[in-house]
Amino acid sequence: MTAFSDSNRVAVGQVGGPTAVINASLFGFLEEVLPRYEVYGLLDGLQGLAEGRLAPLSASTVERYRKASETPGAWLGAGRWKARTEEYVITLKERDIHRLVLIGGNGTMWSCLEIERLAEEMGYELAVLGIPKTVDNDLAETDHAPGFGSAARYVATIVRDISRDLESVRNFEAVRVLETMGRNVGWLAASSGYLKRRADDPPHLIYVPEQGLRQEEFLEAVKEVHRERGYAAVVVSEGLMPHENPLSQPLLGGVSRELAALVREELGLAARGELLGMGQRSHSLSVSLQDRREARELGREAARLMRSGTGGCMVALARISSEPYEYEIYPVPFERVAGKERTLPGEWVHSDHSIGEGFRKWLKPLVGEDLEAYPANLSEEIRR
Amino acid sequence: MTAFSDSNRVAVGQVGGPTAVINASLFGFLEEVLPRYEVYGLLDGLQGLAEGRLAPLSASTVERYRKASETPGAWLGAGRWKARTEEYVITLKERDIHRLVLIGGNGTMWSCLEIERLAEEMGYELAVLGIPKTVDNDLAETDHAPGFGSAARYVATIVRDISRDLESVRNFEAVRVLETMGRNVGWLAASSGYLKRRADDPPHLIYVPEQGLRQEEFLEAVKEVHRERGYAAVVVSEGLMPHENPLSQPLLGGVSRELAALVREELGLAARGELLGMGQRSHSLSVSLQDRREARELGREAARLMRSGTGGCMVALARISSEPYEYEIYPVPFERVAGKERTLPGEWVHSDHSIGEGFRKWLKPLVGEDLEAYPANLSEEIRR
Repeated sequence: MTAFSDSNRVAVGQVGGPTAVINASLFGFLEEVLPRYEVYGLLDGLQGLAEGRLAPLSASTVERYRKASETPGAWLGAGRWKARTEEYVITLKERDIHRLVLIGGNGTMWSCLEIERLAEEMGYELAVLGIPKTVDNDLAETDHAPGFGSAARYVATIVRDISRDLESVRNFEAVRVLETMGRNVGWLAASSGYLKRRADDPPHLIYVPEQGLRQEEFLEAVKEVHRERGYAAVVVSEGLMPHENPLSQPLLGGVSRELAALVREELGLAARGELLGMGQRSHSLSVSLQDRREARELGREAARLMRSGTGGCMVALARISSEPYEYEIYPVPFERVAGKERTLPGEWVHSDHSIGEGFRKWLKPLVGEDLEAYPANLSEEIRR
Repeated sequence: MTAFSDSNRVAVGQVGGPTAVINASLFGFLEEVLPRYEVYGLLDGLQGLAEGRLAPLSASTVERYRKASETPGAWLGAGRWKARTEEYVITLKERDIHRLVLIGGNGTMWSCLEIERLAEEMGYELAVLGIPKTVDNDLAETDHAPGFGSAARYVATIVRDISRDLESVRNFEAVRVLETMGRNVGWLAASSGYLKRRADDPPHLIYVPEQGLRQEEFLEAVKEVHRERGYAAVVVSEGLMPHENPLSQPLLGGVSRELAALVREELGLAARGELLGMGQRSHSLSVSLQDRREARELGREAARLMRSGTGGCMVALARISSEPYEYEIYPVPFERVAGKERTLPGEWVHSDHSIGEGFRKWLKPLVGEDLEAYPANLSEEIRR
């Protein structure tokens, strides 16, 4: 049936930053190909492929570690690595592996394309498949990517909760600038508005990279919200302005801390900048079960495509409807994904820094139907 | 029955920083005293008491807002405020209120004591009761305080998850220094070790204010863990060393960022400092149901004491046993609580920066019996 009848070896790896559900994709794939195929796991993603560190994964090993499908982080190890594409192909060739499946984001799909092209040039038969993964949701051609739903669920709930906390201490603290992940796109920042129902509710201002931020407008908007509400909850995307890398710079922080400093200096208000941090991509109590389900399904579908001899594409989600939520999984050629970026549509985030109803409807099935906005807090009527 | 038969007015307030369950205490109290008493809510805590901003809370209002008992933040407003004790008593006197109930921490119990003493000096009959609340768990004379269990649940899960994430990207990021709340005590930092089962598991090092931190020892320990495990997850309490206040200082951050900078400079390792932030005291998805239950029970018990004419004390939790978990609620005179501090017992955090089994058993019922440690990650045997 397959084009490579003399070898049934498969390599599978996780690449880049993990998500809370990346292991569900891996286990979905493994469950579907074992024990029929001889499977090798790339240790530490592309580094393992470059260095030939591949772990044989038997059905019994996978069964023994089954619970890992529900843990965050990458079970095989992931991370960033850059080697010449040739090194990847050489490892596969040496091991007589003709099928490669990578779970990753934008950059990973680019690597998939390069590896497949080089193998073809070298005359080495190789079928490569990609499984999408990103908390930023910047992958093109898929309605959304696994990992995003859980991150959005975390962001939507924690921003609502931290803002409610702030509201009740406004005689001491006036402004919180909360920073979400999203280096180039505002999907996660926008998700912070999901549980806002009334115009007065926090978060009061959402800034996304697609719209940018002008300091004067920002300060004016914060001032106005604070004047009206007595406090201001602001959400910004980490990719909003160039800022220092926390891994290399000792004291400078993210854009949220810089903006909080600006608010203190220019408006004289007590302001705190807070990065929502690595919990966005890992907090187990915040996982969206729908997100995990889809991650697993995409892993399974990649396995089915592989068994049918298909290569050269990423499995993607196409939404059929939002209410009721229906979708299908289909393959997209790497060419249409690699190097592309999926930005937040303009109509989903307004110029007054609130989100559109269309975005809320789109997001609902991904973060979980159980989430509800809070009732209004002790009303102004009662406060006098 | 009561000593103040001519007035059935009660004032109730929330003071200081809120927790995820502070409203459960308030509603527990309100449910128990309405409609028999005429209840006034202090708006914004002691500020409302000083300024005479009291909201009448009828049974129908409370019923209408019932869902607020499960939201974070303080429903009445809380925050910090400092006025002369006299101002508080004057407001009560003007309104003919002879019963005051405050939900708060250490400082609040001190205020309770002062208010009661001054009223006595002034010949004004006043019964004051306190309901404990703190995420730091630094209140004396109570086994623990509501708010802590939920914060500990958040810390235990998110540290496990962020560490598992780090483990899988160790070819790119080596060290994470995670900072918990706890200005003077290490209860929350220690809670991060709750889901660690094997010596190899993260978090590898926990630093609490009770033990302090010596830079050379810290660097040596991080270096050693990194050498052995390939990564290091470190937890520090915000109160470990004096550091800048995020509300007033623009760029300097918490102790975690300072220590991460130290690791980068002295050990040359890629290190990230991360504050676990305000989600610790507010994240609704992380609430411990037992914590919320106890918060409500303490509110109810304060109401019962009030009805019996008691004053001068805080309701406290006494643990009878951990397995099965049993406790009772009893009153403690303010004198035994005010200005005292409950530190982490020495035997519950070891000199090698791990936590003791006694602490784990003590913590279990508070964070929820459903939490489980993760199985070992892909073993070294498989990684080779």
